[in-house]
Amino acid sequence: MSDSGVDKKTERHKRRMQQRKEIVDAGIARALEERGIAILYTGDGKGKTTAAMGTVARALGYGYKVVVGQFIKGAWECGEKNLLTGLPAEQFPLQWFEMGTDFTWETQDFEADRAAALSLWERLRAALADESVYLVVLDELTYALNYKWLEREEVIAAIENRPREQSVIITGRGAKQYLKDIADTVTEMRPHKHAFESGIAARKGIEW
Amino acid sequence: MSDSGVDKKTERHKRRMQQRKEIVDAGIARALEERGIAILYTGDGKGKTTAAMGTVARALGYGYKVVVGQFIKGAWECGEKNLLTGLPAEQFPLQWFEMGTDFTWETQDFEADRAAALSLWERLRAALADESVYLVVLDELTYALNYKWLEREEVIAAIENRPREQSVIITGRGAKQYLKDIADTVTEMRPHKHAFESGIAARKGIEW
Repeated sequence: MSDSGVDKKTERHKRRMQQRKEIVDAGIARALEERGIAILYTGDGKGKTTAAMGTVARALGYGYKVVVGQFIKGAWECGEKNLLTGLPAEQFPLQWFEMGTDFTWETQDFEADRAAALSLWERLRAALADESVYLVVLDELTYALNYKWLEREEVIAAIENRPREQSVIITGRGAKQYLKDIADTVTEMRPHKHAFESGIAARKGIEW
Repeated sequence: MSDSGVDKKTERHKRRMQQRKEIVDAGIARALEERGIAILYTGDGKGKTTAAMGTVARALGYGYKVVVGQFIKGAWECGEKNLLTGLPAEQFPLQWFEMGTDFTWETQDFEADRAAALSLWERLRAALADESVYLVVLDELTYALNYKWLEREEVIAAIENRPREQSVIITGRGAKQYLKDIADTVTEMRPHKHAFESGIAARKGIEW
């Protein structure tokens, strides 16, 4: 590249970065309210629970207290649970609760599933009322609501009335509008392509 | 609810779960190839890097060796890095590399950014050729490619020629089609709503 070419490119880059910085700075100046947020990860794509677990690692990394409740994955072995629940509790205060039944389409028993979901919900409702808890993860909550294991109004009230400093992450496919309404941040994970469809087995340590 | 109402509901639930199980089982029977996969998290929504970090925790949870390279976030403090890089290395073999410059729109210097990106890339290219590495995370790689810090062909070749058992996660906004083509799984994180836009500050331990 000629010298003037380099100069032009450098100039263009500088201008672009400057614009970007102005946008980011303006956003930071506007966004001033400090409080916990409610995040919803929904959609049919990969990465919903995984993003929630990344956030668990993030919060624990600052020593914040975290409570995780899993409405579906309970019976599966999974790597992030191995790691996160194996950490020294005084440094990384994490509580991890599961529904404790098998995958629901394995058991095919509505009453057993509902009882298990309600028992998990009792623990999570307590966490949602506990000021010392910084982050509550309601993993696959959408299933528990869409299958009518839990009362929608009660769940919404518990999330909305949580302590001001507490954040909540809700994951699961098929989130209804009322969940989008109570969330501050909503991301839809959209699948464009999945290894599974190309005949590749779910990968240990990557997908579970 | 009357007894027959309960019966009907139970029956419906059972049928639905059975259908679901058949679909899942059929998928599992089809998907047999065991090899590492390439995952791309792109789009403008939250959760791309976070999902990658959740996967890092997952892989480490089984004791697999992981290499993380961050093309943008290097200069930021972040909770998950605190946690993951602070783990006992013999049990959780993780290497974490960063570009080591400030956010690019802070520095506004193309040549300095490119040199820093190339230096990071050298380490990641070595990881992509190392059979002992189970997972390589190329965080915000899309920026490094779209800003032309790295040679596209070289990056693609290194990803495609990696060891068969190795998985790769690429994150970043604005992934071009050639990245979608080489990925086995592509998820687009679509923002429907963001706390930031409602005037809520980015939350420590949740968003960084």
